[in-house]
Amino acid sequence: MIIVMQQHAEPKHIEAVVRRVEEMGYKVHLSRGEARTIIGIIGADEHLLHQSAFEAMDGVEKTMRVMQPFRVASRDFTQQNTVIDVNGVQIGGHKVVVMAGPCSVESREMILETAHAVKEAGASILRGGAYKPRSSPYSFQGLGEEGLRYLAEAREQTGLPIITEVMTPEDIELVADYADILQVGARNTQNYALLKALGQQNKPVFLKRGMSSTIQELLMSAEYILSGGNMKVMVGERGIRTYETATRFTFDVNAIPVLKELTHLPVVADPAHGTGKWNLVTPIAKAAVAAGADAIMVEVHPDPANAWSDGPQSLTPERFAKMMQELRPVAEAVGRGL
Amino acid sequence: MIIVMQQHAEPKHIEAVVRRVEEMGYKVHLSRGEARTIIGIIGADEHLLHQSAFEAMDGVEKTMRVMQPFRVASRDFTQQNTVIDVNGVQIGGHKVVVMAGPCSVESREMILETAHAVKEAGASILRGGAYKPRSSPYSFQGLGEEGLRYLAEAREQTGLPIITEVMTPEDIELVADYADILQVGARNTQNYALLKALGQQNKPVFLKRGMSSTIQELLMSAEYILSGGNMKVMVGERGIRTYETATRFTFDVNAIPVLKELTHLPVVADPAHGTGKWNLVTPIAKAAVAAGADAIMVEVHPDPANAWSDGPQSLTPERFAKMMQELRPVAEAVGRGL
Amino acid sequence: MIIVMQQHAEPKHIEAVVRRVEEMGYKVHLSRGEARTIIGIIGADEHLLHQSAFEAMDGVEKTMRVMQPFRVASRDFTQQNTVIDVNGVQIGGHKVVVMAGPCSVESREMILETAHAVKEAGASILRGGAYKPRSSPYSFQGLGEEGLRYLAEAREQTGLPIITEVMTPEDIELVADYADILQVGARNTQNYALLKALGQQNKPVFLKRGMSSTIQELLMSAEYILSGGNMKVMVGERGIRTYETATRFTFDVNAIPVLKELTHLPVVADPAHGTGKWNLVTPIAKAAVAAGADAIMVEVHPDPANAWSDGPQSLTPERFAKMMQELRPVAEAVGRGL
Amino acid sequence: MIIVMQQHAEPKHIEAVVRRVEEMGYKVHLSRGEARTIIGIIGADEHLLHQSAFEAMDGVEKTMRVMQPFRVASRDFTQQNTVIDVNGVQIGGHKVVVMAGPCSVESREMILETAHAVKEAGASILRGGAYKPRSSPYSFQGLGEEGLRYLAEAREQTGLPIITEVMTPEDIELVADYADILQVGARNTQNYALLKALGQQNKPVFLKRGMSSTIQELLMSAEYILSGGNMKVMVGERGIRTYETATRFTFDVNAIPVLKELTHLPVVADPAHGTGKWNLVTPIAKAAVAAGADAIMVEVHPDPANAWSDGPQSLTPERFAKMMQELRPVAEAVGRGL
Repeated sequence: MIIVMQQHAEPKHIEAVVRRVEEMGYKVHLSRGEARTIIGIIGADEHLLHQSAFEAMDGVEKTMRVMQPFRVASRDFTQQNTVIDVNGVQIGGHKVVVMAGPCSVESREMILETAHAVKEAGASILRGGAYKPRSSPYSFQGLGEEGLRYLAEAREQTGLPIITEVMTPEDIELVADYADILQVGARNTQNYALLKALGQQNKPVFLKRGMSSTIQELLMSAEYILSGGNMKVMVGERGIRTYETATRFTFDVNAIPVLKELTHLPVVADPAHGTGKWNLVTPIAKAAVAAGADAIMVEVHPDPANAWSDGPQSLTPERFAKMMQELRPVAEAVGRGL
Repeated sequence: MIIVMQQHAEPKHIEAVVRRVEEMGYKVHLSRGEARTIIGIIGADEHLLHQSAFEAMDGVEKTMRVMQPFRVASRDFTQQNTVIDVNGVQIGGHKVVVMAGPCSVESREMILETAHAVKEAGASILRGGAYKPRSSPYSFQGLGEEGLRYLAEAREQTGLPIITEVMTPEDIELVADYADILQVGARNTQNYALLKALGQQNKPVFLKRGMSSTIQELLMSAEYILSGGNMKVMVGERGIRTYETATRFTFDVNAIPVLKELTHLPVVADPAHGTGKWNLVTPIAKAAVAAGADAIMVEVHPDPANAWSDGPQSLTPERFAKMMQELRPVAEAVGRGL
Repeated sequence: MIIVMQQHAEPKHIEAVVRRVEEMGYKVHLSRGEARTIIGIIGADEHLLHQSAFEAMDGVEKTMRVMQPFRVASRDFTQQNTVIDVNGVQIGGHKVVVMAGPCSVESREMILETAHAVKEAGASILRGGAYKPRSSPYSFQGLGEEGLRYLAEAREQTGLPIITEVMTPEDIELVADYADILQVGARNTQNYALLKALGQQNKPVFLKRGMSSTIQELLMSAEYILSGGNMKVMVGERGIRTYETATRFTFDVNAIPVLKELTHLPVVADPAHGTGKWNLVTPIAKAAVAAGADAIMVEVHPDPANAWSDGPQSLTPERFAKMMQELRPVAEAVGRGL
Repeated sequence: MIIVMQQHAEPKHIEAVVRRVEEMGYKVHLSRGEARTIIGIIGADEHLLHQSAFEAMDGVEKTMRVMQPFRVASRDFTQQNTVIDVNGVQIGGHKVVVMAGPCSVESREMILETAHAVKEAGASILRGGAYKPRSSPYSFQGLGEEGLRYLAEAREQTGLPIITEVMTPEDIELVADYADILQVGARNTQNYALLKALGQQNKPVFLKRGMSSTIQELLMSAEYILSGGNMKVMVGERGIRTYETATRFTFDVNAIPVLKELTHLPVVADPAHGTGKWNLVTPIAKAAVAAGADAIMVEVHPDPANAWSDGPQSLTPERFAKMMQELRPVAEAVGRGL
């Protein structure tokens, strides 16, 4: 961490900062310049230092981090890519993994029909929501445990592992009884009670970026789960909130190579939420794979016009099959398979 | 809701939309223009309609809401301002209420000292966090129930009602045993499991705007609590996330008069989080009161340089007393008291 | 355009709006609903209507556009893709065009060296700035006409057409004497005096999206040039400003398929400005091509560490050659050539 | 400037950076830490250093500025507030100055009528646009010199100095012949050709913040004018672009005290553009004054429903008179007059 003192900082203020740094057991690097005095703390465990503790001291103008504030999530922790095995499906390995299925599980029939369709088209993992975070209390909130049972039946019939969302710590045990991967949605990326509880269990977790999380904050949220002891975490880009209204969110494709550089965790792209429109899903899925994503998550519904949620961004099984065909050569063009 | 059909929408697609609207029991207003066909649904219960259900239908170009998607929170529900009485302190009434105290309760001594100081300077409610949402798992996470006990003792000594944050449904009962107002922080504005549980109990709730929530989403989150049966909800502006980095967040002062127009609920301003810097707290507090805020929440710490959290945006007791002196004439200038 | 009247709008206010619409020569579609009255104007020339003229009338709650506000730029104007021929290079055709060269022309030697290098690696167009918009008045502002002469010499030697920026109407004539394509930078996207002047001449124009322009505003700016009579316009995504600080800008990859849907104009992607870091240029260039971009513009400098501007986002000739190799299979995977 | 080297930066790369710093005539402060090596340059003329020049060097991870990149605009240049005298009206002095008038000059009658009305209500300066930057080429573009003549006549009749926008360098001479203050609009904040030309003449300039300019960029644009020799510059907050759609822009009230801290230049607030709605203008004007603005600019039109531009955000003369009454006590509450 670098601490920049104010232009006319008094000697006693500089000394107070130096003393505190030393009391914390760090070595001080002091640079007295013409215009400002700079105090550097350049230790390996900067993630334990709190910027604001120094910013509130008299005479301090600002502080700047030298290193990332996360540790276990970082490439410094391990250079080797984390590969998560889910019933034989490798996420983060050579092949780009496709997770597909409806936004919500609406009935036994629809999830079974969709599961068979996405399996046939080449998906490796089945998605479907049983607990739904909806912006309106008057909207369908999910089938709950009934939905989980239908998902489990779809897994039995197709062999596809299932991923589904969990919204609150008290639901984890139940959801983990059925699901192969637990998903944390964008509205819960900084729900720390939930993240801590997910660190205490051992099912893989897919952590989505919040709609206004920075990449650093996403990795700090991953750090909550990792530092709790659960190393099976994958992180995902699903669109961020910007001023642009032509799409529901702005898919931050830059985040994919940036995440691959900063972390060893697998990176998942969600072009459905990242655009909000089914006709943009395929081009953005291709872009995400071209940029280096390890997995793609898309929404498939047998009848989007009658979907109970997210219909406009859902592909029909036919359109999904076509997407898979178009995605394969792109994956190969970047040295991956599908 | 207005449904705009595509330029060359087929008659069968237009009919399908009309049929669905009628099946839902609504009256259709059909306008065939030169360039587009428009289908209007102009009923009083538009909040029950789901835009995306129509957007996914064939031939539909886009839909637009005519009315707000919230009902109980809206001015249409009641024109009269909601006034929440907390142990005799009226929030939403004539006087601007000031809530002050430390970010975190750090010890019995510090919260008692701060409580007496803010009471003396004119604060009406004592704030202090016992459960802290921190972006790093390595940061101080709050004293928990111990912190709640110290807050209760501070209330006993000063008579000030207390407000404190609750982060997860399972903590509500415990926190509500001690607190007079339950606070939902910006990271939990769309934690629907928490909001639903808060609708099922009867302590007043202060719901902060998420750092990227729209004003509409904030009121939809309030609707979760209100529609659950708890009408004692106040909403708050605490800064939104923008591209500007000179301040930690951008305090959206526009939101204050917009909220006063859209909702009957009291509106609270948090200039500490909205700026991130103690020297901006006073001017922004004045701006918020001038714009019509019903209450102000600020952070006060006896020794900000040694605060365990949010030191840079905390006022010392002396600076808080000065802020109160400067705020009073502004409150009076807009026809309020302090 | 749809005009939504306020809940209790008086009959005289509704009549006044109807009267004005009729006076303007449009047909009125009036829908009286339970909660609101809606007035529709659904003509083909909605781009001539001004929303704000109605929003300021008594009793009006809000207005909503049915159609896009641009006309010549839109797919409604022509379904056929515009292909711009620049000395035999087709922009907007089957092949993805690569424009490469230094941010600034720094000397005769460096531009000649770079021109030969990018030509050899497969670039089709040479870029280089002679007039530079710099955020600091103390930074290098470009070589001016001297730079243009060097660019022209590079064209003579390599046969590559040249693209360079023009910043003000009075420079157009001079710049157009040398350049094959005139570029409008992100800071001038809404410099209407410049756009009007560019519509009055006939060199092709590359119009970059402003760092906070919506896609619609970008096309409205293109409309200024097109409606002036110059149909040779290409539009470009170069990153937008968001809250994320890990990259200099957020490359809005969604904009590529959205633009291809809304307009017949060629779409160019600029991954150098869209990321600000050379190591992100190649993955984002691949993403842009996968998403459907017609051309890519990148910065190449023989010695980025000594570049006078934009060094951190510049590729060396070697890295550029490698990018070209990696880009080719991606272009082929989406049915294009390079 | 602080240069952070990569974790495993080679000695030769560290040496190369040190050598370059020394060659530039600066003193090097080298700190070798456990995890990183840090190179500090802490001279008084950091504004002459270019961050990107170092970021492109091998082994460099990132750079961070210690000081602001502007010089003449900064408080370091002079602690004393700049007061600009415009025909006897002091901008930046004790009194809050109110500039009012129509968005566009539409006719001789309307500008004369408005001028008398705003003068009577207490405005000190008359605003009105003759050259209008409009997002659509099909919208009214201003009366040009005819509009300037009407403004001059309004000044003669009322004694109010006039402020009007200039859009391109070639118009400056003409506009300056009529106007007392030249305004640079939000779309031209980084039109450097215009800024340079304004630095070469001596009429006062009101520079508005771009809709996505940072506060630092606004002051860098001011620096273009100041460093050209024209010290009569005032800067203005007029709303920034965010994800919130309830208002046209988000008025960044934080910018007011931040600007007052960073610069000695007068700070103007524009609540009309900052909100886009006339009913929000008065509360936000009060907020701006409470936060420390030196001047307020608002739009007044005798008949907003028939305004040719910006009707929805224009006050009628009656509403303007009421705003002035409400603003006065707020100005007094913060120790100013009106």
